[in-house]
Amino acid sequence: MMSANGWDAVIFSSSDPHGSEYTAARWKQIEWLSGFTGEAGDLAVTMDEAGLWTDSRFFIQADRQLEGTGVELHRMGMSGTVSLPEWLSERAGTVAVDGLCTTRAAVSGLESGICAAGSSCRIADVPDLLSGLWTGRPPVPSMPVMTLSEETVGKSRYDKLTDLRKFLLLNGCDGIIIPALDEIAWLLNVRGEDIEYNPYVISYLFVSQNETVWFVKKDDGTVDPDTADSFRELEADGVSIMPYAAVNEILSEIFKAEEMKVFMDPRIVSHTLYKDISEAVGEDNIIAGRSPVSLWKAVKNSVEIEGMREAFFEDGLAMEKFLFWLESEVASGRPVTEWDASVKLTSLRAGISGYRGDSFANISAYGANAALPHYSTPETGSAVIRPRGLYLVDSGGQYVFGTTDITRTVPVGECGYLEKEDYTLVLKGMIALSAAVFPKGTAGCQLDALARMPLWRSLRNYGHGTGHGLGFYLGVHEGPQDIRQNFNSQPLLPGMITSDEPGMYREGMHGIRHENILLCRPLADNGFGEWLCFDTLTLCHIDTSPVIRELMTADETEWLNAYNRRVFETLSPSLDPETSAWLRSKTLPL
Amino acid sequence: MMSANGWDAVIFSSSDPHGSEYTAARWKQIEWLSGFTGEAGDLAVTMDEAGLWTDSRFFIQADRQLEGTGVELHRMGMSGTVSLPEWLSERAGTVAVDGLCTTRAAVSGLESGICAAGSSCRIADVPDLLSGLWTGRPPVPSMPVMTLSEETVGKSRYDKLTDLRKFLLLNGCDGIIIPALDEIAWLLNVRGEDIEYNPYVISYLFVSQNETVWFVKKDDGTVDPDTADSFRELEADGVSIMPYAAVNEILSEIFKAEEMKVFMDPRIVSHTLYKDISEAVGEDNIIAGRSPVSLWKAVKNSVEIEGMREAFFEDGLAMEKFLFWLESEVASGRPVTEWDASVKLTSLRAGISGYRGDSFANISAYGANAALPHYSTPETGSAVIRPRGLYLVDSGGQYVFGTTDITRTVPVGECGYLEKEDYTLVLKGMIALSAAVFPKGTAGCQLDALARMPLWRSLRNYGHGTGHGLGFYLGVHEGPQDIRQNFNSQPLLPGMITSDEPGMYREGMHGIRHENILLCRPLADNGFGEWLCFDTLTLCHIDTSPVIRELMTADETEWLNAYNRRVFETLSPSLDPETSAWLRSKTLPL
Repeated sequence: MMSANGWDAVIFSSSDPHGSEYTAARWKQIEWLSGFTGEAGDLAVTMDEAGLWTDSRFFIQADRQLEGTGVELHRMGMSGTVSLPEWLSERAGTVAVDGLCTTRAAVSGLESGICAAGSSCRIADVPDLLSGLWTGRPPVPSMPVMTLSEETVGKSRYDKLTDLRKFLLLNGCDGIIIPALDEIAWLLNVRGEDIEYNPYVISYLFVSQNETVWFVKKDDGTVDPDTADSFRELEADGVSIMPYAAVNEILSEIFKAEEMKVFMDPRIVSHTLYKDISEAVGEDNIIAGRSPVSLWKAVKNSVEIEGMREAFFEDGLAMEKFLFWLESEVASGRPVTEWDASVKLTSLRAGISGYRGDSFANISAYGANAALPHYSTPETGSAVIRPRGLYLVDSGGQYVFGTTDITRTVPVGECGYLEKEDYTLVLKGMIALSAAVFPKGTAGCQLDALARMPLWRSLRNYGHGTGHGLGFYLGVHEGPQDIRQNFNSQPLLPGMITSDEPGMYREGMHGIRHENILLCRPLADNGFGEWLCFDTLTLCHIDTSPVIRELMTADETEWLNAYNRRVFETLSPSLDPETSAWLRSKTLPL
Repeated sequence: MMSANGWDAVIFSSSDPHGSEYTAARWKQIEWLSGFTGEAGDLAVTMDEAGLWTDSRFFIQADRQLEGTGVELHRMGMSGTVSLPEWLSERAGTVAVDGLCTTRAAVSGLESGICAAGSSCRIADVPDLLSGLWTGRPPVPSMPVMTLSEETVGKSRYDKLTDLRKFLLLNGCDGIIIPALDEIAWLLNVRGEDIEYNPYVISYLFVSQNETVWFVKKDDGTVDPDTADSFRELEADGVSIMPYAAVNEILSEIFKAEEMKVFMDPRIVSHTLYKDISEAVGEDNIIAGRSPVSLWKAVKNSVEIEGMREAFFEDGLAMEKFLFWLESEVASGRPVTEWDASVKLTSLRAGISGYRGDSFANISAYGANAALPHYSTPETGSAVIRPRGLYLVDSGGQYVFGTTDITRTVPVGECGYLEKEDYTLVLKGMIALSAAVFPKGTAGCQLDALARMPLWRSLRNYGHGTGHGLGFYLGVHEGPQDIRQNFNSQPLLPGMITSDEPGMYREGMHGIRHENILLCRPLADNGFGEWLCFDTLTLCHIDTSPVIRELMTADETEWLNAYNRRVFETLSPSLDPETSAWLRSKTLPL
């Protein structure tokens, strides 16, 4: 295909037409081409070479998955790594890009990188360029669409759209194109099952002062009964339902009929859609900026907060049952594998009313396997959990009333001193962040060091962020806030829900992570300003047996005892007597 | 003058032709016009109005100094404050700017602000526009110039200039114009007395691969004998000495003779010089960027570090003598004013061999006066220090072997609980930052919250930064690093010297600040990377009597006791028996 079209190189990004991190099977183009399954990467292919660019989270995985493929791994962020634009500059005259699955910003970045490298190579936009080659390619998913009532989400789609129209007025725009799947789900109070673990509906949304157009209908026009009900509800609220595949065409017609200023986020919108729209409205009529929906969605209202509390309560019951089961199984001498444990945990969550699936693939990791922060538990051949050392489980559920994420590291037998020391230092960091009080305006990167300092003072560190935002029955990862060392100017605001998950990883030995989920809330308002703090939403005991008491301050021990007491008091009335008695023994004060 | 020239408005910045924060009397134009003496501000005058824009550090002072002048105060950073460009947009067609004392970046910012406000007003550059009006205006200062030997600064000017030439080569530049006075003093190993508290020589420097031209000679060509010696030494090192006033003209001639790419920092170079140079070389030949000298200067070499250690040792002796004297005077019942104390402290520093002046005006503040972080102790009518509550002294010295800065808050009698609590919380914050360990790459804004968290957890805060860089016998404030809440991507590097000065201020009651100076140094290098920590350079005891023990952790108490013990052991051999015995009593463990 390349030689027939005169392309010297073809590149693919790991995204989909919606700028997603997690994508449906149809858009796993890099996996189909190279076997690499990581969520972030760019693949470039020339007539005789191929290269994959990815970041440190995926180095080990990419190394393994690319072995024998002839695809060379380029480690982004490491000194001496050639960048994709530099690499292309030396090899290509014409570069074909699938502009449907590459954001406008990514293509602009590529163009300016190639220009900076002093090359004259040219980018050709070829939307969906793999279609002709990939036989048996999965179709665009189109699973049933459900709606959520105002009572369960706290705000009607009418009110949300009204806010958006006010935003457009204030910013001198006539309309906005929203390609981000989590923003659409939040705005329209709809959920789907189009992407594993992410309850999104593959679609685009256009909102102007007069119209709300949702591009979501299947090409063949068929609609299942539940979805038909949902569409009727939306149409009654003034939402026009249009075919997904016709988005570029229909929007172009709208814009040709009427001059409009259109708001789009180039970091999310696809290059192809951006290009078509800017041709239709004229480049001067495009207002590029960050969609306000991301921030609105991150600040939970009181109904969402109550839902999240319920989710963490139910999830905590499942977690305690799971940890009791695990301890008993391991003590009984029956061979339990990491996979068995993962299946058990999912089955306990599945028993919760309102459960809609896991929020990501369980990380069930024993011993040295836990030293890989993104360990993927294999269905066959996973490690047997033996009665010594530590077991780590990072998991979460999607419920119609909220999304959870929790990591616990528990001893399954005797632990060595280093395991205990790492366990204690990570715990001290998690507590320090939980207990933070800060003035309004503080951003996560200003608090990140609190979670790290106990480890830093022992010359230890972890290579991932400390906290990510959580959606309300939406993505388990969301912005715009986070708690990381990278600068991110977004302040933490009351209503935001963010994880607190320091860790310690020793290759070939053990891995530890403690993760609670924190709700930011107002604490006080005095002469020094407005003050915020965190409430811990997670309800699952923290095992005190590996804690080295001498390393804990009095305040930290008090925090830990109070937390475990609260977990017991909250959960035990809903647990069977045996599990409750076990939980009491686990939550005795240190 | 305005009507004669057809100007609707005239604006002045608080800077000088060198982008300085602290300026010579000649450039205190805003003070001459309005009476406002703060180091940061912009003044705008129309035919019937005038306004001053300044930041929160100077609100109280500006309010007082502008009273009755008709100049309106605009509080920058407060919601509802109209910006200078907005204000001008509504009032002016032609705006005259003294482009000699306004940086290129400031004028660009003004222009884009006016443009954003939708106005068509025009900026006219009128260098030195006050000259005709200001009778008795002080001349450009031209005090004796001294040179520092390689032995006392650790690196010859030849080696420093060689580094700069390598930088130019690497960045594709033929020459660099340096207007920043501290950078020139550091590069050429020269010091002067042209600006109070700042040992700079008013001058410009131009460096190319073949030339080093220092624009420093007086207009009248006279040179005092010491300066003549210095000039001879520099000329022997290949430095051409040229008249200060002819900088634009001579540089323009150089650039017209030979096409060059010229490096300049628009945030420091004056608008007028930038304009003249860009006309001479062509806009395309200007490379705008941050001068590398600022960072080189901030990373002290081993000789500078030894000098700074000596400076803090000598300064500590003076401080202990002062605090002993103060305690004795107040106890004796003799009326000591804040000014008396300030004079005493300066006289003790002046007794140190190598003393060249104070590094800033002593802040000697008793009781409620200390609640103003930038209190200026008046020569007449300053408060009498009575035997109750707290006294705060923030001061420092310029020595030929280093620059110091220290704040101590000491009880001069009985203290109330709130004073003690604030004292203890501020101390906890200072200790937390002192004891930090962090990976290479960490920036100050990622550590700032450590110093604040003990206060934050009690819903208290301070409105200034936590730390600023210190020069080596240079400015007491220098960049590029700092420890503040504002994002600043400059990592803290081994050899950087930065203050650690949290505080607490209660209007009408008391003010507390504890300030030690920290040297960043390598601590270890392990599988997790390179690790850095701080050494405390400051040597002066911290009074333990107001410390509330129950608020201190065991680690904090241990830090405090170890610090006081080190102060006693280091200083007492050089103190007279009486002061030494007093210091022993002051440094007994808590």
